[in-house]
Amino acid sequence: MRSREIRLAARPTGTPTDGDFELAEVDVGEPADGELLIRNEIMSVDPYMRPRMNDVRSYVPPFQIGEPLAGGAVGRVVASRHPGYAEGDWVFSMLGWREVARSDGSGVRKLDPDAAPPSTALGVLGMPGLTAYVGLLDIGRPEEGDTVFVSGAAGAVGSIAGQIAKLKGCRVIGSAGSPEKVAWIRDELGFDAAFDYKETPPREALRDEKLDVYFDNVGGDHLEAAIGAAKPFARFVECGMISRYNVGGPEPAPRNMPLIVTKRLLLQGFIVSDRADRARDFFRDMTEWVRDGKVRYRETYVDGIENAPRAFIGLLQGENIGKMLVRLA
Amino acid sequence: MRSREIRLAARPTGTPTDGDFELAEVDVGEPADGELLIRNEIMSVDPYMRPRMNDVRSYVPPFQIGEPLAGGAVGRVVASRHPGYAEGDWVFSMLGWREVARSDGSGVRKLDPDAAPPSTALGVLGMPGLTAYVGLLDIGRPEEGDTVFVSGAAGAVGSIAGQIAKLKGCRVIGSAGSPEKVAWIRDELGFDAAFDYKETPPREALRDEKLDVYFDNVGGDHLEAAIGAAKPFARFVECGMISRYNVGGPEPAPRNMPLIVTKRLLLQGFIVSDRADRARDFFRDMTEWVRDGKVRYRETYVDGIENAPRAFIGLLQGENIGKMLVRLA
Repeated sequence: MRSREIRLAARPTGTPTDGDFELAEVDVGEPADGELLIRNEIMSVDPYMRPRMNDVRSYVPPFQIGEPLAGGAVGRVVASRHPGYAEGDWVFSMLGWREVARSDGSGVRKLDPDAAPPSTALGVLGMPGLTAYVGLLDIGRPEEGDTVFVSGAAGAVGSIAGQIAKLKGCRVIGSAGSPEKVAWIRDELGFDAAFDYKETPPREALRDEKLDVYFDNVGGDHLEAAIGAAKPFARFVECGMISRYNVGGPEPAPRNMPLIVTKRLLLQGFIVSDRADRARDFFRDMTEWVRDGKVRYRETYVDGIENAPRAFIGLLQGENIGKMLVRLA
Repeated sequence: MRSREIRLAARPTGTPTDGDFELAEVDVGEPADGELLIRNEIMSVDPYMRPRMNDVRSYVPPFQIGEPLAGGAVGRVVASRHPGYAEGDWVFSMLGWREVARSDGSGVRKLDPDAAPPSTALGVLGMPGLTAYVGLLDIGRPEEGDTVFVSGAAGAVGSIAGQIAKLKGCRVIGSAGSPEKVAWIRDELGFDAAFDYKETPPREALRDEKLDVYFDNVGGDHLEAAIGAAKPFARFVECGMISRYNVGGPEPAPRNMPLIVTKRLLLQGFIVSDRADRARDFFRDMTEWVRDGKVRYRETYVDGIENAPRAFIGLLQGENIGKMLVRLA
């Protein structure tokens, strides 16, 4: 069985370029006893993949040069010698960035395509949704009437975090990087206020706000502005700092750090993979919210594995609204 | 009754200078019914007073120009028409920066000079000691065998925080600003390692360390180095950022902020005055530790109220070992 895959050709310096990736064709072989073959239909590109391309040991080992990349994907079983899977089954795996994958079943999860579109396992009902859920609820701990600021609010995580905050009775402010995104989160998702950070610096946009919770996907000037606008005892959900991932050298970070002391701020970094204990609660709540139209989601598709690097680069440059996905089939 | 007091003459720009303070002589009058007169023997200068000199509303209102400064002091009652106090009583009050104070008793606390030297109410058994205690134990939550890094470790708070960490079975590293301070914390207080940050940048000194807890009194490059050396899930006790208090304009803060996310760090700012609920536990434990020689303390004295501004400026420049105090009597 032939398959195409994307490999890391070089470690990116700053913003990744096409040359940092290479497309290769491989023979994935036939499934041995206990194995299955998956044809991926949709794969995910996510911001966390960028730091993994650096040669830095983090919570996961870095991607290796010359090796295929990896990430979330959904697809169908095309051959199975594994007792748990039959041909035609929809499955989620971490075997993205390739068209066909051979697997012994580790990290594979069966999906019910009648319960929800399989793509949602990569977004609102998957890792980004769980990230928003545990970050906002367990670290942000929003109370009714709180003011919650979400940066990257038109992204896969931010758009969900903001809507959960609305469900909890909060006033929600979002930042995003285009008028279209701002209109989407304000007019369709029900954010109370939204601004285009490319037009209005966060510090200016938050001038009259008093924040109880900041859900940080961006870092940098957004974090600085949120520290400045925070109420005493505010909680900062440190989910990501996408503004910093492509920065080659050091650069000034928040310059008002002493306010962390005087305002008694909590900043808590977290990684969703530590929080599998919350997956059941999340799945129960989010399935209901999506079904009832209380949480809405959007997907941006790029077609073809050969364009996966472009999708990823586009994600880092904010070209997606909602979840960025690559359609492979 | 005549008294001399120190007033804020101007808001300091950067490092305070003599001209930012003025010495004034006033008549404090006689105590009315329900009042007492206190002659301060020792007053405290503390780092938190510097941000209070800026015109910024923080957790306490800023000091006002032309008004006497305020802060912790211990002294003796010289006249009393208050039922709770008699002439000769030793008392703690927040009426420092003046020789004699008239009071209706608010914020005044009687001291037992036989139980502990009155000066300790300004240091190891007072606000700095409680700060170290709640910061380290309640936020840092050190476990036996943890590695704890304390910056400003020869100061009133840091020296106590480090010793409590030793009592809890931790490996303790301290930074301080002179060879004499380094020798004191390492050879007399029992820190496992110590370095002079003026000789060795914190990043270099911590190169081979893996921190579970960082007790931050300094901010800036110390905070950046601690973020770099932190283990996953490390706790950062954000007690103060003295390196930043005299900085006029913005300046690069930690440049490795994304590690807060990937390492799942907790940064928690706190203010000791929120934690009066822990005063009883603190006083019980610390009294015992000091009595048994398990926690040691040191005081640096400057004489005369006219030299209180110099003592304060010296404190910000690290001229003290242990608690900086001004002897008034």
